[in-house]
Amino acid sequence: MNYKMLSKLFSQILALECVFMAPSIIICLLDNEIGLAINFFISIVIILAVAGILKFLSKNAKKGFYAREGYVCAGGSWILLSLGGALPFFLSRQIPNYIDAWFEIVSGLTTTGASILEDVESMSRGLLFWRSFSHWIGGMGVLVLLLALVSMGKNNNGFTLHLLRAESPGPDVGRIVPKMRETAMILYIIYLIMTLVDFLFLIAGGMSCFEALCTAFGTAGTGGFGVKADSLGSYSPYLINVTTIFMFLFGVNFNLYYLITTKQFKTAIKDEEVRYYFGIAGVATVLIAINIRNLYPTIGETLKHSAFQVSSLMTSTGFSTVDFDLWPNFSKGVLLFLMLIGACAGSTGGGFKVIRFILLFKSGRRGLKQMLSPNKVAVIRMNGHQVNEKVMNTLNIYLTVYVLILLASIFVVSFDGQSILTNISAVLACFNNIGPGFDMVGPSKSFHDFSILSKLVLIFDMLAGRLEIMPILAICNLSTWKRK
Amino acid sequence: MNYKMLSKLFSQILALECVFMAPSIIICLLDNEIGLAINFFISIVIILAVAGILKFLSKNAKKGFYAREGYVCAGGSWILLSLGGALPFFLSRQIPNYIDAWFEIVSGLTTTGASILEDVESMSRGLLFWRSFSHWIGGMGVLVLLLALVSMGKNNNGFTLHLLRAESPGPDVGRIVPKMRETAMILYIIYLIMTLVDFLFLIAGGMSCFEALCTAFGTAGTGGFGVKADSLGSYSPYLINVTTIFMFLFGVNFNLYYLITTKQFKTAIKDEEVRYYFGIAGVATVLIAINIRNLYPTIGETLKHSAFQVSSLMTSTGFSTVDFDLWPNFSKGVLLFLMLIGACAGSTGGGFKVIRFILLFKSGRRGLKQMLSPNKVAVIRMNGHQVNEKVMNTLNIYLTVYVLILLASIFVVSFDGQSILTNISAVLACFNNIGPGFDMVGPSKSFHDFSILSKLVLIFDMLAGRLEIMPILAICNLSTWKRK
Repeated sequence: MNYKMLSKLFSQILALECVFMAPSIIICLLDNEIGLAINFFISIVIILAVAGILKFLSKNAKKGFYAREGYVCAGGSWILLSLGGALPFFLSRQIPNYIDAWFEIVSGLTTTGASILEDVESMSRGLLFWRSFSHWIGGMGVLVLLLALVSMGKNNNGFTLHLLRAESPGPDVGRIVPKMRETAMILYIIYLIMTLVDFLFLIAGGMSCFEALCTAFGTAGTGGFGVKADSLGSYSPYLINVTTIFMFLFGVNFNLYYLITTKQFKTAIKDEEVRYYFGIAGVATVLIAINIRNLYPTIGETLKHSAFQVSSLMTSTGFSTVDFDLWPNFSKGVLLFLMLIGACAGSTGGGFKVIRFILLFKSGRRGLKQMLSPNKVAVIRMNGHQVNEKVMNTLNIYLTVYVLILLASIFVVSFDGQSILTNISAVLACFNNIGPGFDMVGPSKSFHDFSILSKLVLIFDMLAGRLEIMPILAICNLSTWKRK
Repeated sequence: MNYKMLSKLFSQILALECVFMAPSIIICLLDNEIGLAINFFISIVIILAVAGILKFLSKNAKKGFYAREGYVCAGGSWILLSLGGALPFFLSRQIPNYIDAWFEIVSGLTTTGASILEDVESMSRGLLFWRSFSHWIGGMGVLVLLLALVSMGKNNNGFTLHLLRAESPGPDVGRIVPKMRETAMILYIIYLIMTLVDFLFLIAGGMSCFEALCTAFGTAGTGGFGVKADSLGSYSPYLINVTTIFMFLFGVNFNLYYLITTKQFKTAIKDEEVRYYFGIAGVATVLIAINIRNLYPTIGETLKHSAFQVSSLMTSTGFSTVDFDLWPNFSKGVLLFLMLIGACAGSTGGGFKVIRFILLFKSGRRGLKQMLSPNKVAVIRMNGHQVNEKVMNTLNIYLTVYVLILLASIFVVSFDGQSILTNISAVLACFNNIGPGFDMVGPSKSFHDFSILSKLVLIFDMLAGRLEIMPILAICNLSTWKRK
C-alpha cells in the first residue's frame, strides 16, 4: 500500500473542502450569523491542521499506484471529507449529536438526501447552503474535480484511471477522450454549465437566489435536500416542471452530452441505456398517473405530480411535491421499483443503474441458452459492441455483494423494531442514494428516530452506494492495509 | 427435441398419477362420498385417455436425450401432473374455478402450501387427503420416483442424470451411488421410512390416523397444507414439537442420511451447509424467542412457538401454530429472512437454499479480493473440496434469473393494489414454496382474493421455484421447441 501517495491525495482533498466551505461563510456573514461563521472557520482550521499533518507524512511520495490504492483513496477521501464536513453542524449545536451530523453530511455528499432533521426550516441558511452544496460536490465526485484541477505529473494516465474508476458510477468507466485529466475537465464543465442553466430557469420562475442555488445543487447532484419542510410542494407548476426535466437530464450518462456537443448525434441516439431509461420513466409516469387520477383535479396536475415523483426517485434525487407515501399501493410499488433501478451509469444519479439491469437481463438470457445448449458460445452485446467478459464477471460480483449488503443492512436495521416496509425502504433509500422511502421514512418524515447502530449502517450504505461498494469494502478489509 | 421420448415419459408420469389418486378414492368410499369417488374416477379416465394418446404418439421413440430434453421433461411433467391433479377439485365443484383448482394442486405438488381455500374444514376428506398427498408426491419428485420404479434400459445413466438434475433442488446434483437408478431408489426409501417414523410419532401422540397421515405428508414434503383452519395451533405441545423436529429433519440434504446409514459419520458432521443450517435456525429461534417473550406465559411455550415457526418457514413447510403475522416487526423480519434462505439442497425443502448463500458469500469475497489484487487466482472450496467454476457460473446465472423473476412477479402482482408487504411476501412465499406470507397472505388468510393474472403468475412462481427455474423457463422458451 502506497501510504505516502495516499496521504498526499488526502491532504489535497481536505484542502479542497476548505475552499468549498467559503461560500457558506459568505452566506453566514450576509445573514449576520457571526457565530455560525466562526464555527465554519474553526472547522476549516481543524481540517487544515489534519491536512497539514497528512501533507507532512507524504514527503517523498513515490509512484506505484494500483487498483487497490485507487479504491482506498476513493473510500478514504469520502470518509475524511464527511468527517470534516460534519463539523459545522456539530460545532454550531444545530445538530448536537456528531453521529447525526455525520449522517447528514454523508447523506449530502453521497447525494442521498436522507435527513435526520425534523424541522428543516429552523436551520440557519449557512448550514442549509452547506448541506445543499455538498450534493453538488459529491454529485460529480471530489476526486474527479481534483484530477481536473491538479496535474498528477506526466505519464500518469494509469494512475488517474484507477482513481476515476474507483469514484465513477457504472460497470465500466468511459473515457471521453484518451487523457483522463481532460476527461475529468470536460465532465466538470458540462456539469457546471447544466447547473447554471437550471439555476437561471429557476430564477426566471421567480425563485429567490438562495433557494434557486440550493435547488439547483440538489437537482444537479441528484441529491434531494430541500430548504422547505414540504420539499418542492409549495412551488409553482413551472418550477416543478423545470425541476422534473433537469433531474431527469442529470440522470443521463454525461458521455452523451459530450457526444451531443461534438455533434455525434447518431451514436448518442443509439445508446441502449438511455433508450431504456426514457422508456422505463415514461411507462412508470403513465402507470402512476392512471393509478392516482382520482386524487387530483386535472390531468395536467396528475401528470405533473406523477412525472415529478418518477423523475425524482428514478434519478435518486428524492425531492417530492406530495407525500407519495399516501398514494395507492400500486403507485408506491412502482416507485419502489424505480428506486431499485436507478439512473444511468456515468450520471450523478444513484441506484443499481439501468445499464446493469440491461446487462443482467442479457446475461440471464445467455445463461439459460447455454444451459439448454451447453456447447454453444455466445457473446453479450451492448450498443452493438461486444461486452468484455471481465465486465460481466465484475457485474456478477457486484450483484452478489449488492444483494448480500442489502440483506445484511435490512437485518441490522430491523433490530430497531420498525415495520418491514420501513426497514426495506430505508436501506434501499440510503444504499441507492435516494433519500426518502416509505412508512416511517416517508417524504414527510425523517431518519431521526433510528438507533445509533442503524444510523451507522445507513452511513455505510450511503457511502457504499455512492462509491459502488468496492472502495468502502476495501477500507473495511483489514488485509488491504497489511499488503505491501 | 426428442418428442417421442418425451411423450413416452409424459404418459408414464400420468399413469403414475392415476395410481396416486387411488388412496383418495378409498377415503371417499370410507366416508360414503360416492359422488366424490366418481369425480376422482372420471379424473382418472381423462388422465388415462391423455396418457394413452401420448403413449400412441411415442411409438418407436429413439435414444438421444440431452440437458434440453431433461428440462422440458421435468417442466412438462409437472405441468401435466398439476393440470390432471386439479380435476377432482374442479369436477366436484368444491373449487368451482379451474384456475383456483390448478393453483391449489400446484401449491400441493410444489410443496408450497399456499391455499385459495377460505374454509378448509368444509372440504371433503377425500380432497383434503389428495391435497396433502400431493405434497408427499412432489416433495421428493415424480421423475425421481419414475426412475426408481421403471428401468430406462441399459447404459442410460446419462439420460437419467439429465432427468434427475432437472428435478432435483440445489446447485449440483449429488450422486449417492454411481448408478442413478439406485440413487433414486435409496432417496425414496429414506423418504418413505422417515415419513413412516413421523406418522408413528404423531399416532403415539393421539392424533387420528387421517390427520396423522396428512400432517406427515405435509411435513415430509415440507408442504404445509393442514386439515384444520388454525393449521397446527390446536394440537398438543408434544405433537407440535414432533412436527418441529421432523420439518427440520426433512430440510436436511438427504445425502447426509445416506452417509449416516452407511456409517460415514465424519463426512456427515463436516458438511458445511448443514452446520450453517443448524446455526441459522438456532440463532433465529433465540432471537425471535427474546423478541416475543412477553406474548406467552412461559419460556417453554415461547420457545415452542419460536422454534416451530422457524423450522416451518426455513424449511418452506408453512405450517403455523400461531398467527405470526401479529408478532412484532423484528420477528417478522427474521422470518422473512428465513423464507428467503430456505433449506438445504437435496432436501424436500424449498427456497434459495443455504448452500447457495454460502457459495454466494464465498464468491463475493473472492471477487473483492480479485479486484484488489487482479493478478491472483483463487478457488472456492466447499467441504474442503474445490468447487467447479462451472457450478459457480451456473450459480451466478441462477441468482440473476432468480432476482429478475422475483422482481417481475412482484411487479405484476402489485397491479392488484394490495400492500407492498403483501406483494413481496406472496411472491416470496410462492417462489420459495413456503405457503403463508404476511399481511393479506398471512397464516390466517388465503390467496383467494388475488386476480386471475396474479394467480397465474404465482402458479408460474411455484413451479419455477420447485424446479429451480430452468425447466419452466425451458418450457416457456419458444426456441427450445423449434430446435432439432
